[in-house]
Amino acid sequence: MIVPLGYRYATAYAGIRKETRDDLALIVSGVPAACAAVFTQNRVAAAPVRLSRRSLRESRGVAGAILINAGNANCATRTGDKVALSTARATAKMLRLTPAQVLVASTGVIGVELDAQLILNTLPRLKEGLTQDGFEPVSRAIMTTDLVSKTEGVELKLRRGTVRIAGMTKGSGMIQPRMATTLGFLMTDALLAPAVVSRMVRAGNAVSYDRISVDGDTSTNDTLVMMANGACGFRPDLKELPAVQEAVNAVLQSLAKQIARDGEGATKLIEIQVSGTAKAEKAVAIARSIANSPLVKTAVAGNDPNWGRIICAAGNAGVEFDPAKVSIQIQGVTVCKRGLAAPFSEADLKTKLNSPDVLIQVALEGSGRASTTFWTCDLTEGYIRINASYRT
Amino acid sequence: MIVPLGYRYATAYAGIRKETRDDLALIVSGVPAACAAVFTQNRVAAAPVRLSRRSLRESRGVAGAILINAGNANCATRTGDKVALSTARATAKMLRLTPAQVLVASTGVIGVELDAQLILNTLPRLKEGLTQDGFEPVSRAIMTTDLVSKTEGVELKLRRGTVRIAGMTKGSGMIQPRMATTLGFLMTDALLAPAVVSRMVRAGNAVSYDRISVDGDTSTNDTLVMMANGACGFRPDLKELPAVQEAVNAVLQSLAKQIARDGEGATKLIEIQVSGTAKAEKAVAIARSIANSPLVKTAVAGNDPNWGRIICAAGNAGVEFDPAKVSIQIQGVTVCKRGLAAPFSEADLKTKLNSPDVLIQVALEGSGRASTTFWTCDLTEGYIRINASYRT
Repeated sequence: MIVPLGYRYATAYAGIRKETRDDLALIVSGVPAACAAVFTQNRVAAAPVRLSRRSLRESRGVAGAILINAGNANCATRTGDKVALSTARATAKMLRLTPAQVLVASTGVIGVELDAQLILNTLPRLKEGLTQDGFEPVSRAIMTTDLVSKTEGVELKLRRGTVRIAGMTKGSGMIQPRMATTLGFLMTDALLAPAVVSRMVRAGNAVSYDRISVDGDTSTNDTLVMMANGACGFRPDLKELPAVQEAVNAVLQSLAKQIARDGEGATKLIEIQVSGTAKAEKAVAIARSIANSPLVKTAVAGNDPNWGRIICAAGNAGVEFDPAKVSIQIQGVTVCKRGLAAPFSEADLKTKLNSPDVLIQVALEGSGRASTTFWTCDLTEGYIRINASYRT
Repeated sequence: MIVPLGYRYATAYAGIRKETRDDLALIVSGVPAACAAVFTQNRVAAAPVRLSRRSLRESRGVAGAILINAGNANCATRTGDKVALSTARATAKMLRLTPAQVLVASTGVIGVELDAQLILNTLPRLKEGLTQDGFEPVSRAIMTTDLVSKTEGVELKLRRGTVRIAGMTKGSGMIQPRMATTLGFLMTDALLAPAVVSRMVRAGNAVSYDRISVDGDTSTNDTLVMMANGACGFRPDLKELPAVQEAVNAVLQSLAKQIARDGEGATKLIEIQVSGTAKAEKAVAIARSIANSPLVKTAVAGNDPNWGRIICAAGNAGVEFDPAKVSIQIQGVTVCKRGLAAPFSEADLKTKLNSPDVLIQVALEGSGRASTTFWTCDLTEGYIRINASYRT
């Protein structure tokens, strides 16, 4: 896959998770990079989230490395802040960065003490292992209940040359991105100012991570970081920035959709398109309500074109609309026309629903021209099996 | 069980649901009763909800009968309004009431035409079958995916005599009561003015139906009706009204808890107590967020004292609080003290969680003295099985 110039990666097994599978990862930029991030909106923010927020303020948007562990969220723990700070400091010292130039991110169980020593002992091994080819191992080391690793990379040709943008992410449960969800790391070799990176990651997040939900639970550790180290050797023209933003959005949307498709127990990616509202926020609210309806999600799991549950979920979004002006398509088949049942072949549509990709389109008439796209997954017995026994 | 004086009940199989099980019910008061109701807040309201709302306005809070069908929600259908109106009118004519004195309520699948003729043909049989002993058969006829019927009755001794209050309800899925949920019918033989009944049903709803959730889906048909026909022969003293309200609340809370316990696929009733907020609404928001977290509900199903998911869900309620001042008890065992893990025996608590009744207590410190109680159920593979194939 395409990876940006000027970054190195390493992973190791530090003993944080029981299973002997790499659980510690390091991403290092050859030179300190312009950096911005979005974090969880949960009132209960994990220690690494609080520290990274502060570090980005102190460094004024510059970071040289990200230290990530899986298997423990370092949230609601007695020593959480100390663990985050001491491991960030040790990493900074090792890489000759200022402490504020090292971000930390954690994912895993909440409320269990994280042993800093496990990480400190492993840091030298990580440093030795740093390699430009380590992108995909890092994407695997940060996985928890994920079944597949999630990466995306693109190249963008600009006037003065090519820039590369690549990202990785993890997440499968506790997913409802009210800001950033889970962990996501986006690297580019474009030369961009911190303020530009900040704008780009926010705009990209708004059309990607903020448009997916697996189970409506926003985690305590959500972190999406974007780094731009300038290793491509040039600064994009001002008028080329929209193209860079578009490439950023494309990578983030790909990553976000990979999360929804890999939702715990999921067998299908569901795309929900809502159109015809006065403002985009209203379309998003309706799409989110449909995406979070367990009744809609179980119906899709069972290949049941039960559009009554879709219009019911839309009606619960807290958005004013006229039910008599709502039309619904499932897999391109009109099942509800202006609020009423439309004739369709149940057998045919059941067959069409038996697909890894399901499209639900809700069109409102007469309210406006705003629209949105939102992604979620079906809800199966697998979700229950995974979550009735995750911690133990 | 205790039933109020002056009401008669009848049920019949009208052929609305496939299964040969009574699907039509009639509740009649001997004299037109003071009546009030609360209805769904879903933007998509079923035809019977719209008609009953209008009828209560037209009759100025007086009703003589309620016609209820199960198996079809009469929602998002071409002929819905006509079906609701024609069946209400025919019932009124049969019982010598004005059309506005007959309320209608429906529950079942959305988006399928309801054949009025099935109901009209069955009305004479219902009239013949009216009996004072028919309370419990009605509570069974209105069931859909419910496993058990849900009733409650109390007697209240007042200065001038005894009043009786009894209620029945149905509901198992599509349950998140943002007003009234599902169908609930409360009858009393107390003599009360329509305005008093209206106040009482609203106040009672606020501490019962509005405090439960099975799956966070608010239905299109939610209706809770209270009738007071005065058959006890006297009007309670003004200063006795709080006692009547308390009895109404007790009946409604019992019914609401029965719904939560019978949630689709549920094996446990979960009671969530949140205390220490500045305002009760904030406690409710936190409790609702915990009750609607699939991760909390699956953990309870698996007897897993995973309090990290509880504090995470609390943090998602949109309420400001200091995580370091949150303590959590599960089945009376402190698992989190001021935001941090408390020592407890995991094996013991797992055993305690293996119970049909689970208590989760979340105490905030230093914010205030408001509190709330909320009920939900665990989330099991049974919910998925039921809902991946409900319609077909």
